Amino acid sequence: MYELYYWPGIPGRGEFIRLALEDAGADYIDVGQRDGAGAVARSLYDDTTGPPFAPPALRIDGIGMVSQVANILRVTGHDLGLASDNAAEDAFCHGLQLTLSDFVAEIHDTHHPLGPDLYYEDQTSEAKHRAALFRASRLPKFLSYFEQVTATNTAAPWLVGADATTADLSLFQILAGLRYAFPTAMASLNDAIPNLNTLHDAVAARPGIAAYLVSDRRQPFNQHGIFRQYPELDGDSSPARDDDACNLA
Amino acid sequence: MYELYYWPGIPGRGEFIRLALEDAGADYIDVGQRDGAGAVARSLYDDTTGPPFAPPALRIDGIGMVSQVANILRVTGHDLGLASDNAAEDAFCHGLQLTLSDFVAEIHDTHHPLGPDLYYEDQTSEAKHRAALFRASRLPKFLSYFEQVTATNTAAPWLVGADATTADLSLFQILAGLRYAFPTAMASLNDAIPNLNTLHDAVAARPGIAAYLVSDRRQPFNQHGIFRQYPELDGDSSPARDDDACNLA
Repeated sequence: MYELYYWPGIPGRGEFIRLALEDAGADYIDVGQRDGAGAVARSLYDDTTGPPFAPPALRIDGIGMVSQVANILRVTGHDLGLASDNAAEDAFCHGLQLTLSDFVAEIHDTHHPLGPDLYYEDQTSEAKHRAALFRASRLPKFLSYFEQVTATNTAAPWLVGADATTADLSLFQILAGLRYAFPTAMASLNDAIPNLNTLHDAVAARPGIAAYLVSDRRQPFNQHGIFRQYPELDGDSSPARDDDACNLA
Repeated sequence: MYELYYWPGIPGRGEFIRLALEDAGADYIDVGQRDGAGAVARSLYDDTTGPPFAPPALRIDGIGMVSQVANILRVTGHDLGLASDNAAEDAFCHGLQLTLSDFVAEIHDTHHPLGPDLYYEDQTSEAKHRAALFRASRLPKFLSYFEQVTATNTAAPWLVGADATTADLSLFQILAGLRYAFPTAMASLNDAIPNLNTLHDAVAARPGIAAYLVSDRRQPFNQHGIFRQYPELDGDSSPARDDDACNLA
């Protein structure tokens, strides 16, 4: 039995945990969805193991409250059948999971370049600037990296080894979120990431995931999570030009 | 034998790995310091395990190239005597290590709020804004969190359990870097973090660390790493006021 602690109403970082639990058909309670944000806040700070800095956290029998997405996936991955038993593959996979965390942080920063303490509406100008740089440089850099990793793995469509791992599920979520948040940029990059598109569809077709995606437990993307659809932040992924709205010199 | 791959000339994220290796008296080669940046770049992409997205990476006998600071410290921690054998403590500790990674990313973003593709000089105005918010909110939030963790651990001065872990060494480096980059803000917060100050000094006094800090292998902070001393980004850590240089409304 697992208990997930995450803010209700957004897929957010909690979704990376939900996907792993759902893929494995694990028995879990989504405390935030069931009992609300107050229950999440109270439970996070009532724990003998030590409080997490921020959600998501997962309470695991015999271990206690575990925080940080990549750490939760590391601790549960083997039990969920989503980790390699090979030490080298497992170490490579956790490195990929952490690089996906970095990618998520940069995606979030496109709408919050001045940090989490200001509303988007109070940093829109800076967000346009950062998003243009992200589309021109960081987005294709991250995507081409993961495209290369999948191409190198002859046991495709996965990132590492012959079986799906938590990193594959997380990458699926990121690709889906990017298509929502940056439809124009992703369309312009589509032909460059055939392996990632195959990986996305292969994850969506897994029995546990396919059932989850059509359930009412799957929350749609919205304007309050990591992936937000602000048309003013989207655009082609081509390198910025002098006549762009913001000066990139 | 370990081989560290990181850019020469800055402590940077490589320093979190160096501190763990030096504390344990491990046999390692700092490839970047010995052979230069070209050797780092070439070796990163000539690996059968799969290339890292970015340095630092550590080549480990029997495992291969491992990337991402927290992952490297996780894989090596037990062999270096810097991890707990208790599963709950180990899971909590890796969560702390990842929260330290998030803290480092936010510290870096104070001088690069628009991302890594522009020079600091091309985003100074935005950096002043983000740094003011960081000093007023995120800096005290992170520090008070880790202060609380050390206060909760009755086997102080460490974060988790009775012995030092990689997370303690990393927190030492962050505290030292913050004192360099934000001397005024850190002075104003000094009385609020007695446990962290004790932890800093306890790490510095460990035999392996003390010997390392006075060696020529320890690189000083400078203007090209995570922690940079830009006086215009420093100031009191008090909440921002209406008459601050930048409008925080």
